[in-house]
Amino acid sequence: MTVKRKGPKYEKIIDAAVAVIAKHGYHQSQISKIAKEAGVADGTIYLYFKNKEDLLISLFREKMGKFIDTTRDEIEHVQSIEEKLLTLIEMHFKQLSDDHELAIVTQLELRQTNRDLRVKIGEVLKRYLELVDQIIYDGMEQKTFVSDLDIRIVRQMIFGTIDETTTSWVMNDHRYDLIALAKPVHQLLINGLRYRSS
Amino acid sequence: MTVKRKGPKYEKIIDAAVAVIAKHGYHQSQISKIAKEAGVADGTIYLYFKNKEDLLISLFREKMGKFIDTTRDEIEHVQSIEEKLLTLIEMHFKQLSDDHELAIVTQLELRQTNRDLRVKIGEVLKRYLELVDQIIYDGMEQKTFVSDLDIRIVRQMIFGTIDETTTSWVMNDHRYDLIALAKPVHQLLINGLRYRSS
Repeated sequence: MTVKRKGPKYEKIIDAAVAVIAKHGYHQSQISKIAKEAGVADGTIYLYFKNKEDLLISLFREKMGKFIDTTRDEIEHVQSIEEKLLTLIEMHFKQLSDDHELAIVTQLELRQTNRDLRVKIGEVLKRYLELVDQIIYDGMEQKTFVSDLDIRIVRQMIFGTIDETTTSWVMNDHRYDLIALAKPVHQLLINGLRYRSS
Repeated sequence: MTVKRKGPKYEKIIDAAVAVIAKHGYHQSQISKIAKEAGVADGTIYLYFKNKEDLLISLFREKMGKFIDTTRDEIEHVQSIEEKLLTLIEMHFKQLSDDHELAIVTQLELRQTNRDLRVKIGEVLKRYLELVDQIIYDGMEQKTFVSDLDIRIVRQMIFGTIDETTTSWVMNDHRYDLIALAKPVHQLLINGLRYRSS
């Protein structure tokens, strides 16, 4: 049986899943609980998703899709490489700041121990990491950054720093302003990357 | 009932748990499987651990305890702040390189979705992060680093970068030399931190 991948009910179920998983944790989020939150019958969920794991990955794919598109649009509107990196960090923090439930799901609940799931998450993240890679690549081309950077390591530094900062903020119950950290995080990262003409 | 926290069987069970969890994944690692691997009766495990979750946290506490002690000893043997940071990164990569099973457990299996478990992991990690903080603090004191760093953000950058680099290596089935990445990772981090007297 093929499942549908769009429509108002599809989005409604996804939003319900984010809310239920953020509140109860992935393992305690039965399909029936999500159906109730979405206001649909249990069986309706299976018209759209193969199982709970498929629902988790689908919601990540949907939400990250929008997240990536929004970030890319914003990055295109600024000129310099340094600003592009700042925009990427700001958009990352802003979009998760704006949606605490999504942040709980991406930073805690999605970090499944299941290896297959990790691989699927990696595939979704790939498009995002390509945005990061493009900034690093352009930065080297334009000599904003030193020219012999190992893109993989720099990507891991940038993503690792942003991700760890976000997870700490979630673990601290969103008690402080995450967006305010964008500038100091950017400053630290850019100092390590900035081209020095000496 | 209180449980014992030491002895040869305690260590044997912990090592068996690391092997079984790395191979089968946490959720598929029944106590009976771990007992069989350790060569003890199922009931023996409950003399040492309250339940499977307690076993997971205990193994992390044991292994990280040694990890932290070894790292601290090595750091004490080098003089400059920059070398101390390099040593920290090298020891992190070396200890996980030397034990692929432990690396799978710490980077993938331990990242449980269960919030209580995450808090307990955070408590164990705290001692490690204090080592990182000490390096940052001393670096600012000695003007090796700029003096107005936000320790929390720098800690998240350092730990986030090391952790993401390690996770990527595990996800890529340990196909490349992790220890060889210590120097370039250190270089990137230190460039962002180095004091500039201009």
